[in-house]
Amino acid sequence: MLFRQLFDKESSTYTYLIASGFGREALIIDPVQEHTDTYLGLLEQLDIKLVRAIDTHTHADHITALGDLRDATSCVTIMGEFTQAECVSEQVSEGDKITIEGITLEALYTPGHTDESFSFYLSDTKMKAVFTGDVLLIRGSGRTDFQGGDPYKSYDSIVNKLFTLGDETLVYPAHDYKGMTCSSIREERLHNPRLAGKTAEQYAEIMRSLNLPNPKMMDIAVPANLVCGKAN
Amino acid sequence: MLFRQLFDKESSTYTYLIASGFGREALIIDPVQEHTDTYLGLLEQLDIKLVRAIDTHTHADHITALGDLRDATSCVTIMGEFTQAECVSEQVSEGDKITIEGITLEALYTPGHTDESFSFYLSDTKMKAVFTGDVLLIRGSGRTDFQGGDPYKSYDSIVNKLFTLGDETLVYPAHDYKGMTCSSIREERLHNPRLAGKTAEQYAEIMRSLNLPNPKMMDIAVPANLVCGKAN
Repeated sequence: MLFRQLFDKESSTYTYLIASGFGREALIIDPVQEHTDTYLGLLEQLDIKLVRAIDTHTHADHITALGDLRDATSCVTIMGEFTQAECVSEQVSEGDKITIEGITLEALYTPGHTDESFSFYLSDTKMKAVFTGDVLLIRGSGRTDFQGGDPYKSYDSIVNKLFTLGDETLVYPAHDYKGMTCSSIREERLHNPRLAGKTAEQYAEIMRSLNLPNPKMMDIAVPANLVCGKAN
Repeated sequence: MLFRQLFDKESSTYTYLIASGFGREALIIDPVQEHTDTYLGLLEQLDIKLVRAIDTHTHADHITALGDLRDATSCVTIMGEFTQAECVSEQVSEGDKITIEGITLEALYTPGHTDESFSFYLSDTKMKAVFTGDVLLIRGSGRTDFQGGDPYKSYDSIVNKLFTLGDETLVYPAHDYKGMTCSSIREERLHNPRLAGKTAEQYAEIMRSLNLPNPKMMDIAVPANLVCGKAN
């Protein structure tokens, strides 16, 4: 399997490029617009063909590359069914399968950071992994105070859905700010300080007390992402 | 296998923590001193015991955590046989095996960035990877203009040693500055702009023309690393 985790330093965003091998179909998760040329170069060098581009949710801290990648490669753009980004070609629901040559992702509805956030689960003989967007981060979780966020829904998504995927499942989030690149369900279940041993009410209290400023890119990124980064 | 790639934003250094599973022995490659507490926390959370700490070479851009990790865990510190860092417990030569429970690394002498640089090759049923330090970077290579660096030796190490490891071998360097986290021998052989299709003389000319400033930490880091980061 070809698996490439790519990092945008400006927004600390992780993007994932996945294919079952050289010369085959590929998909990308949470691509960042300003790295579009890097992705296109890498697709060419790895001799893989981009056929699906997925955003886990409407990002508030960077502009998506979904539109530019569709223009450049004719890939299908995908988000969850509750997105307001009508620009995407396909909207997926809980349990839907996204399939390319040799790779299948299962869509999991995981609201809480936003009301339209999905995670994507890869269960392969070589690798079990979940791409959690911003709902579950490494030893943390995405804020729940805007874009339809809700700490109780976040807790439910993480504890009652993601934590049931099996301890060895790797966790690949859309962000990390401390130099971590991946985790596992086991680690987050046992050691995520916001969640381990916490009730939903305790988690909600932690999330309500964060008092974070809005992302500096929010006023630009959200409207841009509702049109797949292709605003005029 | 537990495999964790960790990133130091200040120096863009990658550190690798590897174990064959929870509850087992671990090794770390190119740890950064200021993240020592993070490593110790992660060792505890993953329930793994650090028994080997390796530096690929004497770094000029950050201070090693080898000394602090030895103090905290009684791990064996390791560098290549030509290091001047007499503080390390063990010096390895070409072909030597570094073995912990379920994991074996082979030491490869790969001078060029410095005259004492080693790479470490992991050949496992689940993963083939080479930890290249600074000699081979993703679509680049480490500078060759100080610490006994030599562009011809760098070319020879990369082309005649690392490139023979097999196309599917993953390449994990000690640095990346552009948001890439890994590569493969195939990609570097075919697409590294300094090396693909280049003669040793052409490569040497490219390296001689880089005219890079010295790393800002060099005057502090090199002396500190010669005593494993434990200067008084």
